[in-house]
Amino acid sequence: MAIVLGPNRYGKAETRVVRVTRDGGLHHIKDLNVGVSLSGDMEDVHLSGDNAAVLTTDAQKNTVFAFARKHGIGEIEDFALLLARHFVDSQPTIHHARVEIEEYAWDRVPVEDGPPGERHSFVRGGAETRTCLVHSDGTGGEESVVSGLKDLVVLNSTGSEFHGFIKDAYTTLAETDDRILATAVTARWRHRTVGSDWAASYTRARKGLLDAFAGTHSLSLQQTLYAMGRRVLTDGPELCEVRLVMPNKHHFAVDLSPFGLDNPNEVFFAADRPYGLIEGTVMDDVAPGSTSAWK
Amino acid sequence: MAIVLGPNRYGKAETRVVRVTRDGGLHHIKDLNVGVSLSGDMEDVHLSGDNAAVLTTDAQKNTVFAFARKHGIGEIEDFALLLARHFVDSQPTIHHARVEIEEYAWDRVPVEDGPPGERHSFVRGGAETRTCLVHSDGTGGEESVVSGLKDLVVLNSTGSEFHGFIKDAYTTLAETDDRILATAVTARWRHRTVGSDWAASYTRARKGLLDAFAGTHSLSLQQTLYAMGRRVLTDGPELCEVRLVMPNKHHFAVDLSPFGLDNPNEVFFAADRPYGLIEGTVMDDVAPGSTSAWK
Amino acid sequence: MAIVLGPNRYGKAETRVVRVTRDGGLHHIKDLNVGVSLSGDMEDVHLSGDNAAVLTTDAQKNTVFAFARKHGIGEIEDFALLLARHFVDSQPTIHHARVEIEEYAWDRVPVEDGPPGERHSFVRGGAETRTCLVHSDGTGGEESVVSGLKDLVVLNSTGSEFHGFIKDAYTTLAETDDRILATAVTARWRHRTVGSDWAASYTRARKGLLDAFAGTHSLSLQQTLYAMGRRVLTDGPELCEVRLVMPNKHHFAVDLSPFGLDNPNEVFFAADRPYGLIEGTVMDDVAPGSTSAWK
Amino acid sequence: MAIVLGPNRYGKAETRVVRVTRDGGLHHIKDLNVGVSLSGDMEDVHLSGDNAAVLTTDAQKNTVFAFARKHGIGEIEDFALLLARHFVDSQPTIHHARVEIEEYAWDRVPVEDGPPGERHSFVRGGAETRTCLVHSDGTGGEESVVSGLKDLVVLNSTGSEFHGFIKDAYTTLAETDDRILATAVTARWRHRTVGSDWAASYTRARKGLLDAFAGTHSLSLQQTLYAMGRRVLTDGPELCEVRLVMPNKHHFAVDLSPFGLDNPNEVFFAADRPYGLIEGTVMDDVAPGSTSAWK
Repeated sequence: MAIVLGPNRYGKAETRVVRVTRDGGLHHIKDLNVGVSLSGDMEDVHLSGDNAAVLTTDAQKNTVFAFARKHGIGEIEDFALLLARHFVDSQPTIHHARVEIEEYAWDRVPVEDGPPGERHSFVRGGAETRTCLVHSDGTGGEESVVSGLKDLVVLNSTGSEFHGFIKDAYTTLAETDDRILATAVTARWRHRTVGSDWAASYTRARKGLLDAFAGTHSLSLQQTLYAMGRRVLTDGPELCEVRLVMPNKHHFAVDLSPFGLDNPNEVFFAADRPYGLIEGTVMDDVAPGSTSAWK
Repeated sequence: MAIVLGPNRYGKAETRVVRVTRDGGLHHIKDLNVGVSLSGDMEDVHLSGDNAAVLTTDAQKNTVFAFARKHGIGEIEDFALLLARHFVDSQPTIHHARVEIEEYAWDRVPVEDGPPGERHSFVRGGAETRTCLVHSDGTGGEESVVSGLKDLVVLNSTGSEFHGFIKDAYTTLAETDDRILATAVTARWRHRTVGSDWAASYTRARKGLLDAFAGTHSLSLQQTLYAMGRRVLTDGPELCEVRLVMPNKHHFAVDLSPFGLDNPNEVFFAADRPYGLIEGTVMDDVAPGSTSAWK
Repeated sequence: MAIVLGPNRYGKAETRVVRVTRDGGLHHIKDLNVGVSLSGDMEDVHLSGDNAAVLTTDAQKNTVFAFARKHGIGEIEDFALLLARHFVDSQPTIHHARVEIEEYAWDRVPVEDGPPGERHSFVRGGAETRTCLVHSDGTGGEESVVSGLKDLVVLNSTGSEFHGFIKDAYTTLAETDDRILATAVTARWRHRTVGSDWAASYTRARKGLLDAFAGTHSLSLQQTLYAMGRRVLTDGPELCEVRLVMPNKHHFAVDLSPFGLDNPNEVFFAADRPYGLIEGTVMDDVAPGSTSAWK
Repeated sequence: MAIVLGPNRYGKAETRVVRVTRDGGLHHIKDLNVGVSLSGDMEDVHLSGDNAAVLTTDAQKNTVFAFARKHGIGEIEDFALLLARHFVDSQPTIHHARVEIEEYAWDRVPVEDGPPGERHSFVRGGAETRTCLVHSDGTGGEESVVSGLKDLVVLNSTGSEFHGFIKDAYTTLAETDDRILATAVTARWRHRTVGSDWAASYTRARKGLLDAFAGTHSLSLQQTLYAMGRRVLTDGPELCEVRLVMPNKHHFAVDLSPFGLDNPNEVFFAADRPYGLIEGTVMDDVAPGSTSAWK
């Protein structure tokens, strides 16, 4: 036996870059949180502290800012690919790059009082965040793009049942044919190639998630999860795999009988913990494999 | 000298109640976080642990759920007043009640596949939260209603200057005639009476905050804060006082010159800490005083 | 009626300063989070954006760092007083300063392998944070010092009862003569003068809180709160007022009877929300008044 | 191509159980956060909502509480194994169980005033949390135990250098031979078998992490990480693999020259974001493989 270095990576996490693009008085903004992870010839830095193979995390951060200026930020998948390829292509000691981006949505505030061409006011919109996770072994090497979203909080106030489950010695839950179903969706979908129309794909996938959540009469959160993943794949032929993480945000109908009141599923207590946690994958059975896409 | 009991209060914090109202297949939901604080004849419970004057916080929670069923939840100000008056009116030992409510916004998810009358799917909307804070000494006693919002995150990508400030021995900040101005607004406005049209008032105040933020060419965040408060009062004659807390969420233009790049206010680093914190009040100079409205 | 500017203040929040003091190879560290709020002649900056009276929040931050170098950081109360007086004394437009500091505790890691004189390794200790809040109208003006702590999480696994409370129509809580009592203490105590032995006073007050929490057979959390405040005042003649905020972190004995098990107060579910919230003041009845100490 | 169900699991997350053990007036407490994930014959529940193979997450929660009563909670690894085996052994449709536990530390509060045998007062201790992650395919099947800790925050105020790194076009970082090195350690170590002396192993591993952090003159955080992992393996022959995640919590020496002050590494700004993120594995090169231990 010998003690050896196993898998490792390093990088700069959570670089918060805001990019303003000016079209006269009409401004556009992109607001990102960028994480970079690199790996390669890192034996020496771990074993002896020799940094000759190390591109500093400070330089990674600088690259994010400089590339935002030089290349602009279009769709986050393209920006992530640009960064990931740069790190591998430019450094002989770096063999793999992983770039993860969160994008925060902003809506315009209409300015009624200002000059007509001036539009530079924004308000943070929505509760969810668009995400991507890109892996690159460099231009021409293995690459993958996973897009997604998180914190998409949805609720059906009816149309959800739960019964027919195992009754063991520790089962006390009553069966129900009407409950609230609520969750905060984290969804990520893998593209077949690194060349989708990212914006259209995102819009379609998000709509598919909402449509399937709302349109499924649910017998279990698993069924809803599968329907959501299936819809994303069905509507998005450019996609080959969807991973969903969906906490079951329990809403318990409050027993009001001590107060002489019925409660026909109208008043609920929204619980924090514990919560159910449902995780599942929906995939094309002939999807190209990927060992690195999701790490 | 003697050691005595000073000001005190107690109650149930953060009761999370979701109320579904069914209009056939068309559902409406209200999603609230309710906090209750009571005070009154509480000497004995502190000094000897005699609970005879104590309405349990568990009963306060139950009341929130039961009233949601019996009375429904309309505007949060009305629900808060109903609760606050109930506690004081029904308990001879309780003299003051304070009810604080946060309301989370939900938008409808259109269901394309379902039957036409079925609408019971929702997605959490917006990033901000509507709030109210109600004080009541009971029906006929002193009462006040403060409405508001928090986490309204706004940004102007230009139209903001900052110069002419004091230069002391520790001042290194450069003056600027173009910067990003960004903040997360917490605003609360006090009503002159307890009988406003709460929904219309809220919509108008929120719009006033956004209009004034977007429409003010800013020489300081204080100036913008004052303009926002002033607009809310000007547009809302039912209001007499506005309190604003606005962190200056610094966006620093990144120095890209080491990389041979200029940065004409296009690439910014969004900093977390430290941040400026601007707090101010705008009020009607003949506003009725209130010792309890804001506590 | 006219719309006017009401109370206001501004400053730099959450400046995170770490100060290392080197005594040869023996190092000491202070790790602080500093918040500054100033007020004074601020009409112009609000009404017209004229910044002539404004000391920038950036300069406030710089002052924190520079003073950490010039004067060192001893007890946080002294450092806060030094800063607060500086801002008022040095700027004719600033009339009031409020400095709030959180101090994070670090313990030493013993280094067994290194040279004997080398001691520069630390591990974050404890869960609670020491705090202070200082107000100064400048040297010779009104001043106050409030010391305290937050997040002191304590639990008694017995020795707590709760009964004899009001039974109204919404009361379902069973009376009990044995429950878990748990809370996260936020306590702040006001000094009679600005010249205490801060370190000794803090140690004594913290010990008093723990002793009284552990030593009180509790009939209500209010009784425990009062006993804790009373002990701090009794043990600390330099103090005149204690304010306590104590959430009742409910631990519910789980009903295990469906599984053929009893539960003699052995297995508890630790709930998050809702929670009871108990707030109270214990004071010397002839304590000097203070309008600004707690704001 | 066909759309199929891929990897999936479900369970109850974050069951907060507190267990009191009474030895006369001397009490002991265990305070845990338990997460359960199960997988097995879950095709039907996803595809058609048939729950016949589903053990409800509510029953999982009940099992945690009931087992805490029946079996007590000793070391968290044993409790996790007990639960994991139970779920797989008792349910023919469940083939894999994963139990993750966090344990919060409590110290005793000495009670000076009470009767001598009474010891039931506790204060939350330390900032870090002990963890374990157990996988079981049932009694006699594949099993693994990973122990660990998180949020162990450590800092060396000297003894850290960083130089000799790549200088590319985006590198501006100055080399240094003296900096603060600070991190919040998340460490997990895999046991060779499921039969270690968990308590002794934990104590040894935690001490090894601290010793190696403090005792390593660091040329890079990677070198320190490797030294820490190596020490844990060297001191713990019962272990075969260590995984470490260590954010580089940057402390920047503040430039005080504008104020006429030098800064010989005494005053630092503790930054939040962005931060370096170093992840690495140290392992026995003949460690038995595991496909399921870390998922």
